[in-house]
Amino acid sequence: MLSDIEIAQRSTMLPIVEIAEKINLIEDDLELYGKYKAKINLKRINQLAGQKKPAGKLVLVTSINPTPAGEGKTTVSVGLADALNYLEQSTILALREPSLGPTMGMKGGAAGGGYAQVMPMEDINMHFTGDMHALTAANNALSAFIDNHLYQGNGCQINPATITWKRALDLNDRALRNIVVGLGGRFNGVPREDGFDITVASEMMAILCLATDIDDLKNRLSHIVIGETYDRQMVTVADLKVQGALALLLKDAIKPNLVQTLYHTPALVHGGPFANIAHGCNSVLATQTAMKLADYTVTEAGFGADLGAEKFLDIKVPQLEKAPDVVVIVATIRALKMHGGVVKTELAHENIEALKKGFANLKKHIENMQNYGLPVVVAINEFSSDTEKEETCLKEMIEALGVPVALTSVWEKGPVGGIELAKAVIETAEKQSSDFVPLYDMKKRTIQEKVTTIVTDIYGGSGVQFSKKAKKQMQTFAERGWDHLPICMAKTQYSLSDDPTQLGRPTGFDVTIREFVPKLGAGFIVALTGQVLTMPGLPKKPAALQMDITEDGEIKGLF
Amino acid sequence: MLSDIEIAQRSTMLPIVEIAEKINLIEDDLELYGKYKAKINLKRINQLAGQKKPAGKLVLVTSINPTPAGEGKTTVSVGLADALNYLEQSTILALREPSLGPTMGMKGGAAGGGYAQVMPMEDINMHFTGDMHALTAANNALSAFIDNHLYQGNGCQINPATITWKRALDLNDRALRNIVVGLGGRFNGVPREDGFDITVASEMMAILCLATDIDDLKNRLSHIVIGETYDRQMVTVADLKVQGALALLLKDAIKPNLVQTLYHTPALVHGGPFANIAHGCNSVLATQTAMKLADYTVTEAGFGADLGAEKFLDIKVPQLEKAPDVVVIVATIRALKMHGGVVKTELAHENIEALKKGFANLKKHIENMQNYGLPVVVAINEFSSDTEKEETCLKEMIEALGVPVALTSVWEKGPVGGIELAKAVIETAEKQSSDFVPLYDMKKRTIQEKVTTIVTDIYGGSGVQFSKKAKKQMQTFAERGWDHLPICMAKTQYSLSDDPTQLGRPTGFDVTIREFVPKLGAGFIVALTGQVLTMPGLPKKPAALQMDITEDGEIKGLF
Repeated sequence: MLSDIEIAQRSTMLPIVEIAEKINLIEDDLELYGKYKAKINLKRINQLAGQKKPAGKLVLVTSINPTPAGEGKTTVSVGLADALNYLEQSTILALREPSLGPTMGMKGGAAGGGYAQVMPMEDINMHFTGDMHALTAANNALSAFIDNHLYQGNGCQINPATITWKRALDLNDRALRNIVVGLGGRFNGVPREDGFDITVASEMMAILCLATDIDDLKNRLSHIVIGETYDRQMVTVADLKVQGALALLLKDAIKPNLVQTLYHTPALVHGGPFANIAHGCNSVLATQTAMKLADYTVTEAGFGADLGAEKFLDIKVPQLEKAPDVVVIVATIRALKMHGGVVKTELAHENIEALKKGFANLKKHIENMQNYGLPVVVAINEFSSDTEKEETCLKEMIEALGVPVALTSVWEKGPVGGIELAKAVIETAEKQSSDFVPLYDMKKRTIQEKVTTIVTDIYGGSGVQFSKKAKKQMQTFAERGWDHLPICMAKTQYSLSDDPTQLGRPTGFDVTIREFVPKLGAGFIVALTGQVLTMPGLPKKPAALQMDITEDGEIKGLF
Repeated sequence: MLSDIEIAQRSTMLPIVEIAEKINLIEDDLELYGKYKAKINLKRINQLAGQKKPAGKLVLVTSINPTPAGEGKTTVSVGLADALNYLEQSTILALREPSLGPTMGMKGGAAGGGYAQVMPMEDINMHFTGDMHALTAANNALSAFIDNHLYQGNGCQINPATITWKRALDLNDRALRNIVVGLGGRFNGVPREDGFDITVASEMMAILCLATDIDDLKNRLSHIVIGETYDRQMVTVADLKVQGALALLLKDAIKPNLVQTLYHTPALVHGGPFANIAHGCNSVLATQTAMKLADYTVTEAGFGADLGAEKFLDIKVPQLEKAPDVVVIVATIRALKMHGGVVKTELAHENIEALKKGFANLKKHIENMQNYGLPVVVAINEFSSDTEKEETCLKEMIEALGVPVALTSVWEKGPVGGIELAKAVIETAEKQSSDFVPLYDMKKRTIQEKVTTIVTDIYGGSGVQFSKKAKKQMQTFAERGWDHLPICMAKTQYSLSDDPTQLGRPTGFDVTIREFVPKLGAGFIVALTGQVLTMPGLPKKPAALQMDITEDGEIKGLF
């Protein structure tokens, strides 16, 4: 089998204006970035938002708790969209933008894989249309304004020790996690502790992805809390009066990006927040636009359904004003066997017992999605090591729950490998009606109640331990009127619990909330369950060592 | 008079494909970034480079030593190009890209002003086509690779205390000048001192601007010296094996950007290195391309002629393989009066004596350019406070040197205000032949000789004091075979001497070289004469406070 980049290089893209035509966009609706990338302008976006035409069906792709065995959620999303188009359903794919940091670090892109890829993958995985860089610039401009405020002694007296706004770069760089800035004497700023997050973990990214228009963007930016004054009053971006400048820096980044899959399915690839410290979905604007332009929109949430889908449903859906019509949960036999206790090196061996045990993880995610009132389809993403007996066993267990299941092999076969899944999705969308019930009433429930509901109902835990600090914060936040906001859980993606080693379907556990972080710009309150890494590091041998570009522009080693 | 952004907003741009047609570029030669910006692809660039057709005339615009009174060098460059086109000379403007840092800080863009602007100014002054951000990413990726190397203990043992490669952001942020990274214990990197430069001051930027193709880019990247091992062997990017990845990150940034002026003159705006720590000119590729496509190319060098033009001639010309046909030196009566001792608040008053005294500065720059064998034209950029008597006096002094002089008022009048200058340039280019003699023989002269020649011949100083450290470095560099490289002087732009308070034409001074910095990637050796600020700070009231964008996309307060 060819590598991802080889497959991509051997395929032919259509000019993006031709892709746009398929979904009734004309060249004037686009801002071209080369021949194969475009942004959709806000005029057209706003016009679509104002149309009375009902939105198309929304398919949310999520997965079991991820394991080192790999689930291929993005690949399945791409392949499903291709297969839906193959079956002559007008379909748009709405995905997140990959981050450059992991691209330089690990082998493996984030634009799908094999014969289910989004193109041009070398651009999407690098600078793309500059959204990440614009976010980085806006994020760090705010930091510069804060430090300039300290240095110049402007207006309110910010206490340097209370500044929570961190700098950001779209790179994996552990040496920037904890730094001291402002050294070098009185002409070089005020010394203080600081750190860099990877851009996708920044509140700036979450804001861009949840904003519904420029005014909403500016409003969210103005509410960002950056720290406190010496008399413990909170300081926001509005106090620094730079929300206009920050919005100006994001004026192009807010526009959804149009690209295509290997099989010319239109793809809106826009926004890419982390799914722990942030909500882990592509932008509201892109998803809304896709639903106005196509009969089916296939989108994806980060990590497993306990993190990504829960946040999609409880944080994004209220902005989107539309719940999914079908939820596709991706699982692999290999990953379920890991959830059943098999180590990575033993995955090639048939192991029905482990599969049955690990199935508990998938079952819990199915139940969770059904409890939201959403129709579920399970996609088993095939691997060559899967045995027929394992496949039959897994299908039977899923069908016993009354849930449609489909084998997919889009990585190897492209759209043809996704027809079974696409048919199951269409049938489910047409027969079952989505009857969405939010997990909690955002406005009426307290922070404590909301966190507890997520832990008991979604994670299957017994209860929640709040640290002394967290308790005090809940009181303060209530006094400040912040308890109407949804909760964004920062938890390990590897387990339903807050302990990454507890695979399968752990029970009887408590989740400990160490601390809350108010993200008033994004409009949610992050609940930290443990140490959350917001700046990854590079591995011993970064993928960058293999990368190259030749004189005639041929790219090597990207994946 | 309208503000720059108001003038820009009221004018109409032509689609960039129409601008391209004027200079025989077809749509297939372009990579569009929206309707009004494009990159020229490398295929076409290489094809042009291979053409036997002789290059068009090259006009280098430089100035007297800058003063707070303002000279308007970029504005004159834009207006001159517009006027040449107005006179039906096929002309391309080749300028540097502005940096976002100063845009957010000071009022005033870097894409010209008034009726001599490059458009779309709001994009050019912000993210443009992403070149700065790509450079920032490549610069910081290298830092991440270095710190990962330290952390992982890979290969050669870099001594953290010797690392000279700094991080970069395209912002004004004094708090990042001196930082400590790698704090937070053993899993968060190796603690060391570091700092951020503004991206335009980075060696990455100098490399991009001097590279003649992808192979040359990679070769230059591989030669960057990042620090030393514990046994004092220098460590280069080639040792880290990441030149391929860095070149890949710059694959689009290396392509020249095509935009237009208010009067639809094609403009290649590409690359923007500092003119003290780096060589201060737009990219070699853009200038070369412009010369192949037009009869006249108008380009600009940073700061005054002692810094920018000297570096253009001694650092860029060897790569460009073409010297200017005409040098335009921009002066204003206000600035010359400041050089003659008048303070800024008194500039509105007529002062012939101060003008005569300050003229010495202009005279020295004229002599310098003539000593290179280059025909000179002086452009007096008019201000409303200039009196007729002052204008007559200045013109007479210039004409007495046998140098053509022209009044320009392109800021107020557009191309019509530049006709006199354009005619003088055409006449000079047609009559006088450029007979370029480099200031020094790069390969045969020692570092000490080269520095001394610049100080005595260009600055008019008596001699050079080398610090103990500088002397030792010259010896080491000679041993390492680096003394064939040109010198890049890092000196104050405000004076011909190394003392910013010495205006006019100081004499009898020595220049002190504190230290050398080898920039083997860029291919020059920086000579530091004093403290050079490579990361600016924001003023007390940054321009950002006035910036805004409305719901319908109208931009406010950019300038």
